[in-house]
Amino acid sequence: MDLEQYIRDIPDFPKEGIVFKDITPLLASPDGFRRAIDTIADEFADAGITKVLGAEARGFIFGGALAYRLGAGFVPARKPGKLPGKTTSAEYALEYGTDSLEIHEDAMGPSDRVLIVDDVLATGGTAAAKASLVSSSGAETMGFAFLIELDFLSGREKLGDRKIVSLIHVV
Amino acid sequence: MDLEQYIRDIPDFPKEGIVFKDITPLLASPDGFRRAIDTIADEFADAGITKVLGAEARGFIFGGALAYRLGAGFVPARKPGKLPGKTTSAEYALEYGTDSLEIHEDAMGPSDRVLIVDDVLATGGTAAAKASLVSSSGAETMGFAFLIELDFLSGREKLGDRKIVSLIHVV
Repeated sequence: MDLEQYIRDIPDFPKEGIVFKDITPLLASPDGFRRAIDTIADEFADAGITKVLGAEARGFIFGGALAYRLGAGFVPARKPGKLPGKTTSAEYALEYGTDSLEIHEDAMGPSDRVLIVDDVLATGGTAAAKASLVSSSGAETMGFAFLIELDFLSGREKLGDRKIVSLIHVV
Repeated sequence: MDLEQYIRDIPDFPKEGIVFKDITPLLASPDGFRRAIDTIADEFADAGITKVLGAEARGFIFGGALAYRLGAGFVPARKPGKLPGKTTSAEYALEYGTDSLEIHEDAMGPSDRVLIVDDVLATGGTAAAKASLVSSSGAETMGFAFLIELDFLSGREKLGDRKIVSLIHVV
């Protein structure tokens, strides 16, 4: 696949000592972006996905394209106060304190089979929060897809037995 | 088309007296979302689009799907401080004061033909700022696409002679 060639390391962003994985060269490449979306979609082609869930902001880019490609609907997970209707909320831990994500409470239901998408799997905290939003709605999480997985953070251990597709692994 | 059926009015959001146009029912509908993306893509099928530019956060959803559909790259326009590389910035007016949007300075160049996408065309301030980011890069804005245009705000008058496609008009 060699999608790694489209990922740019930016040292000391957002703060000193962090090497940020910049995905914008992949997004900007028609070939790289298409291959990323198609590879994930092919992995879940037989899963009967009805909804793709992505969190703001970068999860919206892959989520929108994947929902289109899979013929599914897209459900945005947003920071508190951004969604205009009645919401369901799930907390996740930060380095210090907690934050939360919300979806509309009518965004999905028991008949939905959901693919959770994000650009990076790090500690797994936000991905697990998204899965709890799905289960609160009575829907089923069929799997997770990430562009990049930071293997050394063991985030997948928080995601149970579900299928996890990561296109690039950072060990 | 009747995509209007997928838009939900939420009164008094984000503040009293505003009727918010909630697009999440359209996103959640595989049929509605696909028709929205396909209709815009068909309008620009012969424009030789190489990059789709969308601003966070809702512009990422349509922008990602359209870039995929058109076989183009996607360029995210973000709030200050969010992009890790060197950026170009453009200001736009708010009700009180100004804000700005940024793209990576190497995100596009003179050979690029750009489609600017967002969910709503209101006063046109942010769309005009995006067009100025494109021209700063030496690229060409081939047109604009919006899910909803608020006709009574006359935003299109800020966008020059370029092609503008809006799927839903609020008069």
